[in-house]
Amino acid sequence: VIGRLLVVGTGLMGGSVAAAVRSRGQAQEVWGVDPHHALEAHELGLIDRGFPSLADALAVCRAQPAAKASGSAVVLAAPVSLLAAMLPVLATHHRDQPWAWVTEIGSTKQAVIEAMQSVARQPPPVKRALTPDPAPCFAEVFVPSHPMAGAERHGPQAASADLFEQARVLISPLESASQAAIGQVEAFWAGLGGIPSRLAIQDHDPLLADISHFPHLLAYGLAALLSARPSAAAAQTLYGGGLRDTTRIAASSADLWADILLQNRQAILGLMPQWNAVMQQLTQALATGDRAALAQLLESAATWRRGFR
Amino acid sequence: VIGRLLVVGTGLMGGSVAAAVRSRGQAQEVWGVDPHHALEAHELGLIDRGFPSLADALAVCRAQPAAKASGSAVVLAAPVSLLAAMLPVLATHHRDQPWAWVTEIGSTKQAVIEAMQSVARQPPPVKRALTPDPAPCFAEVFVPSHPMAGAERHGPQAASADLFEQARVLISPLESASQAAIGQVEAFWAGLGGIPSRLAIQDHDPLLADISHFPHLLAYGLAALLSARPSAAAAQTLYGGGLRDTTRIAASSADLWADILLQNRQAILGLMPQWNAVMQQLTQALATGDRAALAQLLESAATWRRGFR
Repeated sequence: VIGRLLVVGTGLMGGSVAAAVRSRGQAQEVWGVDPHHALEAHELGLIDRGFPSLADALAVCRAQPAAKASGSAVVLAAPVSLLAAMLPVLATHHRDQPWAWVTEIGSTKQAVIEAMQSVARQPPPVKRALTPDPAPCFAEVFVPSHPMAGAERHGPQAASADLFEQARVLISPLESASQAAIGQVEAFWAGLGGIPSRLAIQDHDPLLADISHFPHLLAYGLAALLSARPSAAAAQTLYGGGLRDTTRIAASSADLWADILLQNRQAILGLMPQWNAVMQQLTQALATGDRAALAQLLESAATWRRGFR
Repeated sequence: VIGRLLVVGTGLMGGSVAAAVRSRGQAQEVWGVDPHHALEAHELGLIDRGFPSLADALAVCRAQPAAKASGSAVVLAAPVSLLAAMLPVLATHHRDQPWAWVTEIGSTKQAVIEAMQSVARQPPPVKRALTPDPAPCFAEVFVPSHPMAGAERHGPQAASADLFEQARVLISPLESASQAAIGQVEAFWAGLGGIPSRLAIQDHDPLLADISHFPHLLAYGLAALLSARPSAAAAQTLYGGGLRDTTRIAASSADLWADILLQNRQAILGLMPQWNAVMQQLTQALATGDRAALAQLLESAATWRRGFR
């Protein structure tokens, strides 16, 4: 059991982490940081205590250290564009009050990789030289992760203690991370019902472009197309399960997804030539009435999809 | 309660109709016709009696007429490409043994419209001139419909008695249909838990291109793209809810969907210029890093999607 868990960002994802940790009793106390949602998250019972900023929360941490035996940990669930600025702040705090482990759950990792290159150059905790069992430096306890779970709704009202049940959680440590910290972060997610799965951090963003970001772009594109059709209003009531599911994630927060898509735009745009070639093949088969070619394209797609486990 | 319901095609859709009718006791007997699945549908308990062909079933109908008071009805759930040939056969049978109503549930209606133009020229049932209360002609009792329900699996094993619960069912009569028959077909679907919704038949295929066929094409395209990526195998285990849902319908029967897409290819291909324009706007905003334009595109798509009821 963690002594104190600090959850930074208490929207859908962070709120769900907090709810899952509290419902399973996996931390003695759960503190939340959110400039917009901290009060609401507290009122919803997701967190024990809320702060409007990371600086506020860390000031109280300094004044009221967590019990040393159980320690403190951090889950960063803030928008990707804000994460890079938080890492040096947490690293500085770590010099006086070492974290047991720190993870972030951003949908892209490039900014995190870059931020950690400068953080890694910071000196280790002051205690390191003075004690026989020195605290690990920040880069050793920091382990990025990414639960493959979410919802098209957002904000703390949408949080769910069950969000991570059976969800794959990508664990993407940098080379500087210690095996101990990696193991603790994996155990943390497993404790919330997730299935940890290692992925080298440099492979994260290209993989996510394929399996999440590009599919989001298409879903938004499809919804944008249909919203401009004469059928737009009829579709909102007459949709079947296919349209419901293919467009579900297009209801996701436009603000969050603008950031995610921009952060990973190189990999996403890199898929366009291959995408255009596939669509060209499909429309060509349709236009020429080439049933054999069309059925073969559909079947190869279907075979792959039926392999989902 | 219908005396005898003839379900032609006992795969996912027809099998589910049969199962729903039997579980709700809405017909005294349910007969199934399917060259491939009739035996299996019978073994699964979906139908009371199975026939390999429509001709076989109609021969037994002639020999063993249903009780006149309750009458016979037909649900055509065969592949779209086979429907047109069945309508004249049912119309001919109707002259001797009138159906109470006949519906078909194809995903496209153009071939049905065309087939009915020749059927409508056939003479009315022989009884018409001889009785004071003449039976309506086939064109009066025939009412196309389209339940907006389905599944990516197919065959009678995938049939479900609950498939139509809360599903919209498009009711698309031709001008020749009688109000009585329209009402009976609507009542039939309502009895299976569906929500009937009228749609002029000439509007059916363009609407379905928007809300079902084009989304299927994109889902198949996305699955085809990802199946050819280096991440193809990883994606099959590491997918989140977004990829799961955007690609779910790409596991649908390639054979059935090749037919549906080809039947409606004009309307589907007609969407491509508008689709390409939307994708051009999105990728342009991404490529130039225009966050405001990107967020606005995403937000308008999200607003429409959040309007689903």
